[in-house]
Amino acid sequence: MDRTAGIVVIGNEILSGKVSDTNSSFLARELRRMGVDLRRVCVIRDDLDDIARTVRQFHESYDLVFTSGGVGPTHDDITIEGIARAFGRRVVRDPDLEQKLRDFYKEKVNDARLKMSEVPEGAELIYGGALAFPTMKIENVYVLPGIPEILQSKFLSIRERFAADPFHLRIVYTREGEGMIAEFLNDTVRLFPELMLGSYPKIGDPEYVVKLTLESKSLEYVERALAHLLRILPDGCVVKTEIL
Amino acid sequence: MDRTAGIVVIGNEILSGKVSDTNSSFLARELRRMGVDLRRVCVIRDDLDDIARTVRQFHESYDLVFTSGGVGPTHDDITIEGIARAFGRRVVRDPDLEQKLRDFYKEKVNDARLKMSEVPEGAELIYGGALAFPTMKIENVYVLPGIPEILQSKFLSIRERFAADPFHLRIVYTREGEGMIAEFLNDTVRLFPELMLGSYPKIGDPEYVVKLTLESKSLEYVERALAHLLRILPDGCVVKTEIL
Repeated sequence: MDRTAGIVVIGNEILSGKVSDTNSSFLARELRRMGVDLRRVCVIRDDLDDIARTVRQFHESYDLVFTSGGVGPTHDDITIEGIARAFGRRVVRDPDLEQKLRDFYKEKVNDARLKMSEVPEGAELIYGGALAFPTMKIENVYVLPGIPEILQSKFLSIRERFAADPFHLRIVYTREGEGMIAEFLNDTVRLFPELMLGSYPKIGDPEYVVKLTLESKSLEYVERALAHLLRILPDGCVVKTEIL
Repeated sequence: MDRTAGIVVIGNEILSGKVSDTNSSFLARELRRMGVDLRRVCVIRDDLDDIARTVRQFHESYDLVFTSGGVGPTHDDITIEGIARAFGRRVVRDPDLEQKLRDFYKEKVNDARLKMSEVPEGAELIYGGALAFPTMKIENVYVLPGIPEILQSKFLSIRERFAADPFHLRIVYTREGEGMIAEFLNDTVRLFPELMLGSYPKIGDPEYVVKLTLESKSLEYVERALAHLLRILPDGCVVKTEIL
């Protein structure tokens, strides 16, 4: 079963250049490892309409959606409200979560802290990973926090549920530039139209000039495509081949 | 004059986790420095429809659009064709560019290399920065390459044309967590509704727990908001204040 995914990163701090987003590249690598086909990543503002519209669109376009950021106790944490709006649901306090927060903070409980018990009505709560705090799931949307350490721990605690057939990857490093080898790549994708063939020039690397990636969910297909490409590339062009 | 911007990053290699995108965070920092308000970043596949649809949408939504990636000589470099489709234009060979490529490669010129002379009809070519190769501009869309070193050099060579009023930024580091200070932040944004106020908890930093950012294009406004916030935060809560 092939599953597609989209990631919505929510946070003014990324768009204003204060923080570099590392969550989407972490999720991209992990999803790939699980055989999930990531189709789009969007970084958007802490803006209710933007969040609601984007999450709705992703919900309709991809099998799995992950959001990152905007789930804390402060004024700019409006992801929950935005997602509720995307699904036309109300925001409600989850009674269990509220009780847990009251037990934890005791006399120090306040409105900001209780805001952490708010969920879109009908959300599923998944416990596991860093913090006692659960991951929220609404339809096909998984709501992850923005802090990288917590996001990573939370994702790793749920990733097995996303496992699909793996991608098979072969890598070829060449001594010749793209302008020289393009015709051989074109020939290969003409004969193997389902092959995912990437071509990535590297500047200033003494070992190679272009890294080629060949991928497919069919091991036999990628092996045949690789054999073809290696056969037609000029003598001495290939530095080395890797299997990942 | 306030200008908005969007960035479209084009490349399967990023979505499949092979390469981490650093171009969008570079552009985010640079645009912020120039006073430009970046509203959205999308990472999309090397797919004609995706490129055409996304570039069209960004073109209609933001004052400035930057694309990154997909402009080389190989089969997966289809950004030019996608952008042409976004504007309903044909792809044509630019005669000057074609001549330059023929002069440079001489007897080694081939179709793949001449592909680099293709532009959406009517594109403006801007020379400057790394490589003799120009940056393309179609309407409000600037077409940048995916290789970070070249993208950076190309952007720096054109950035002055984007200069707008700068943002004024003040940073406050606190010893207390978000749950404790949220009410003071809420009070500040209630009194200063135009303030851009960000709150970023840091895990495991011995010096501070939350970094607060206060921003505005009005220096006087951000100074007044900062004075208010510093007045209402509890004694001993502030580690330090920075002006950037």
